[in-house]
Parts: sequence; C-alpha cells; structure tokens
Amino acid sequence: MILTVTLNAALDITYKIAALTPHTTHRVGEVRERPGGKGVNVARVLSALGHETVVTGFAGGHTGAVLREMLAPLAPRDAFVPVTGTTRRTIAVVDDASGDTTQLNEPGPNVTPEEWSAFLAAYQTLLAEADAVALCGSLPPGIHVGAYAELVRRARAAGVPVLLDTSGEPLRRGIAARPDLIKPNADELAQLTGSREPLRATRDARRRGAHAVVGSLGPEGLVAATSEGIWQASPPAAVRGNPTGAGDSAVAGLLSGLVEGLPWPDRLARAVALSAATVLAPAAGEYDAAAYEKLLPQITVTEHPATA
Amino acid sequence: MILTVTLNAALDITYKIAALTPHTTHRVGEVRERPGGKGVNVARVLSALGHETVVTGFAGGHTGAVLREMLAPLAPRDAFVPVTGTTRRTIAVVDDASGDTTQLNEPGPNVTPEEWSAFLAAYQTLLAEADAVALCGSLPPGIHVGAYAELVRRARAAGVPVLLDTSGEPLRRGIAARPDLIKPNADELAQLTGSREPLRATRDARRRGAHAVVGSLGPEGLVAATSEGIWQASPPAAVRGNPTGAGDSAVAGLLSGLVEGLPWPDRLARAVALSAATVLAPAAGEYDAAAYEKLLPQITVTEHPATA
Repeated sequence: MILTVTLNAALDITYKIAALTPHTTHRVGEVRERPGGKGVNVARVLSALGHETVVTGFAGGHTGAVLREMLAPLAPRDAFVPVTGTTRRTIAVVDDASGDTTQLNEPGPNVTPEEWSAFLAAYQTLLAEADAVALCGSLPPGIHVGAYAELVRRARAAGVPVLLDTSGEPLRRGIAARPDLIKPNADELAQLTGSREPLRATRDARRRGAHAVVGSLGPEGLVAATSEGIWQASPPAAVRGNPTGAGDSAVAGLLSGLVEGLPWPDRLARAVALSAATVLAPAAGEYDAAAYEKLLPQITVTEHPATA
Repeated sequence: MILTVTLNAALDITYKIAALTPHTTHRVGEVRERPGGKGVNVARVLSALGHETVVTGFAGGHTGAVLREMLAPLAPRDAFVPVTGTTRRTIAVVDDASGDTTQLNEPGPNVTPEEWSAFLAAYQTLLAEADAVALCGSLPPGIHVGAYAELVRRARAAGVPVLLDTSGEPLRRGIAARPDLIKPNADELAQLTGSREPLRATRDARRRGAHAVVGSLGPEGLVAATSEGIWQASPPAAVRGNPTGAGDSAVAGLLSGLVEGLPWPDRLARAVALSAATVLAPAAGEYDAAAYEKLLPQITVTEHPATA
C-alpha cells in the first residue's frame, strides 16, 4: 500500500457568494465540505488510480470527527491518530461571477510531545506495510520544525521510498534528511534556492540533498532533475479552470509511477496529465478521468542535454 | 420562564486575521466559537438578569451537535427540535488593526413540513409554561414566510405576551398577527414604513398591528410607541465598541421588564443600558455587568408630547 501523511489535515469548506466586499455582510449561497489536507487529496487520487492507500496524521475535535466520518465511505483507509486539539477548517470563498477565491485557513491543533510520540509509533508500524510514503503539507502548531526530517529518516531506515511535499523551513530541514523526491512549486523553489529560473532552481534544490526534484510550474508542466537525467514535461496547451489540488494530483502521479516502476518520462507524463485533468474538473480537488485519459498521450516529455 | 425561539440558530465563529484582502490566502490567527442566533443571545442575557429561560428552534447536523454541546453548561435550558439538515455557521472575519468585520452567513437547514409540525407541537407545549416568548431572527430555508405570524397567533391564543424581532416579509406578515411588541432597527423601520424619520416610522409601524413598537437607533438609544405613550431613551454619551448583540440585549431588557411588570420608562432604561454595556464588552455578544450597573441610572427617558 501507499501511505500518505497529513499532519495538519483539514475540513475543507467552500462557500459560493456573489462577490466578496470587505467589512460587509454576505449571504452564502452554497456550502460544500470535503475531507482535506494535501495528503488526503493525494490518497484519493492514488485510490482512483487503483492503488491501495492509507492516510495518517492527526485528527481531533468536532471537525476531526466530521473529517473521519466523511472519509469512512471513501477508498483510502483511515489511520489518523487522535489529538486533543481541533482539526482546522479551511474556507474557500468563491465569487460567483469571477470564480476568484479568497482563502481563510485556521491554524490547526496544538500537538503535544506525547501526541507526537504516539504518531511516531503509529507511523513506524504503518511503514512496515508501505511501498512508498508521501509527507504532505504544513505542520500544525506545537510540532518541531525538524519533524519531516525525522519522518524522512525513519522511512529511509525502513527502506520505504519517501516523497516530501511541504514548504519553508520544514522543507529545508526535510531535504537535508535526503528524501527520494520533493515536488516544490515555482515559489517554493525560489524560496529554497533564491533562483526564479526553473531548471537552475530544480538542479540547485537537488544538490541540497533530495535524490530527485520535480518542480511544478503551473500551466507549463513539470521539470525534473534526477540521477537518470533531466526532463521537462508539458501539457499540449494551457488548461483553464480551478488549480486547487493540481499539485496534489501531480504528487499522486509521481508516487504511483514510482511504485509501479515506470521510467521517469512516463511518471512525469502521468503527473502532468493528472494535474491538468484536476484543473479541468468542476469540483475543486477532484480530477476529470476522461480528460486524464485523453491528455495522457498528448503530454510532451523532452530530455534536457545538461548533465544531472 | 421566558421562552426564546431561534428557528435559524447558528454556530457563531470569529476569525482574527491581519487584514482581509479579496482573492488572496489568509492565515487565521485566532478562532472562537459560540452558540449563536438572536434568540440564543437574548436567552443568555435574560439568564444573566436572573430569569429562568428556555431556548427552542431547530438544531441539526454536526454544527447543531456542537451548538447543543456548547449550550449544555450554560444557564438557558435547551429545548431545540432536531432537524435533518445542518445548522448554519456564521463567520465573522475581524481585521486585527481596524477591528472591521466581514460577515459570511450560511443559509441554514432546509426544514421539511414534518419538521415544522414537530416544532409547532413542541412550541405549543412550551407556551403552557411560558411567561413571555421572543421570536428572533431569520427563517431557515423551507419555512413559509408566514411562519412568525402563526407563532404570534398561537402565543396570543395561549395568553403569552410575544415579542417579534425579525425583518423583511416575515416581519411584515408577523405584525399583521398583532404581536405585543416588535423591536425593529432604523433600517428595518425604513423598509417597513418607507420613512427614515425614527419617531414617525415607529408610530407608523405601530399602526400596522403591533401593540407596541420599540425602534432601536444604534448609539442614539430607543424610541417607543405604546398604548401608554411615546418615549425616547438615550445613553449618557455614545459608546464605542463592538455592536454585535446590542439589539439582542435590548430585546432581553424589554422582555425582562415586561415579565417583571416594570413601567415603560424603566423597561426602556434597562434595554438601553444593557445595549450600551454590550457594545462596551470585549467579547462580541456578551455584556459588561459593571458597565450596565453604572449606566442604568444615567439613561435619560423623555416622554414625547404627541399622542400615541
């Protein structure tokens, strides 16, 4: 099975309103809720691709209970660890006319050292059954900034390939523990390396310790720096829609390709096609299966002559 | 006991953020939750004034469960009727620097005809023990616009004094059923009568059927048109703070005064003092008990010479 870790899971709420005007009162037209957090999104796409998946991290309070209730009928197996604090809500306020989104993200539960120890024990047990693990998203309050580095080291010690998808200092520290793969976006690459030139930043990021780096460049696709070569993968044309979850679908594409032993160009094509099919789906964070099948053979993957 | 009805109860959530910028992402610094809806606020103030109170209306879904859990340790007795739909959330996004608030209000549960019948049965039973009843706030989806008129008629048939605090068409229809008291604010008065002149609008509103009308004029206090006379009640000076819940505190002041058989000037003084003490309280919807005691003897109540 593939394990995904979401330390700061969320109940994702979407509000449709006419238009957001600060310091006024708005009637919400439509309310949607879904279990969220990057690792949960990744697991749902992995399940749709036919992989057995397990989700872990922390869930607590009344929002944590709702999250677990909504997960129960879905394919990923729930192995969340209880926490005394309350799982965060994220609220996406979507303007009806423009489709523009204003995001409000709660901080998440304060995790105690005892709860972190309980999580580490659960993680160690789950690693024994895992073919790969994805560590996804932000850290909730109370968890030390080196937490992902610790989880990367444990995965590597257990011989389980590990993908890290986070940002800021937790990413910086995590890379030093030598994960198999990181998937920063253009902003995260720039923050990490100081460079806005994608190919250069991706190669620089790799020198910091990750075995492979796949930079996600939004509508332009992916650039990958690996021990086997450097590739650029692009969709046939820029797609228009809601980019929420596109990065998580790319992670699912990369991780499933790794577990299936696909060559790098095929992994990248799958990741780009899934990502574009997510942008095209009407619901945020879902992917359009028909669009995925249609896009997959149309992805261009070119190898870069530079040495990795 | 005093009964308050909140057909569209709410879980009130307050977010503190640096400043709201549409179409960007915000980290929420602080999250607060409280049981809400106008009738719940009114009942809490009535309890603080020493009255036995019962809250009813609809509660359902996971937010309804949280609402009831948060009500359990408080003084008002919970007599909410279950509903299959989900109790709404209201989100107040407060900018840290300015204190300006952006409000997002979910619509509330869709109430079926069977659920409305179940509520009517519960209401009828509660009326038998009630010394007064307050009907407060908006109607959830699925409830017919004449619902408050029906609740007013039943209260009057049971000989229970009834206060109606709502707006728009439900207020218009409700007034025709001749409630003992309505408490519109300046906007609601203008919508009802077409007049922005408070005294005139209050008297006009009374002619539509309410036995007494108390118009709330924000920092200027209250104006009352009753069968016994017309009064204006004002605080010693305009108070600065958060006006959330000030109207609900005024309702509690008026209703407690009615049940205690106070003369109109004393009821109005109490309502204005409670209202101002609510604006002065640091937490939205609470009132500052010391400020209330200090303000009460300072309220000016003047009788207007015009015939009611």
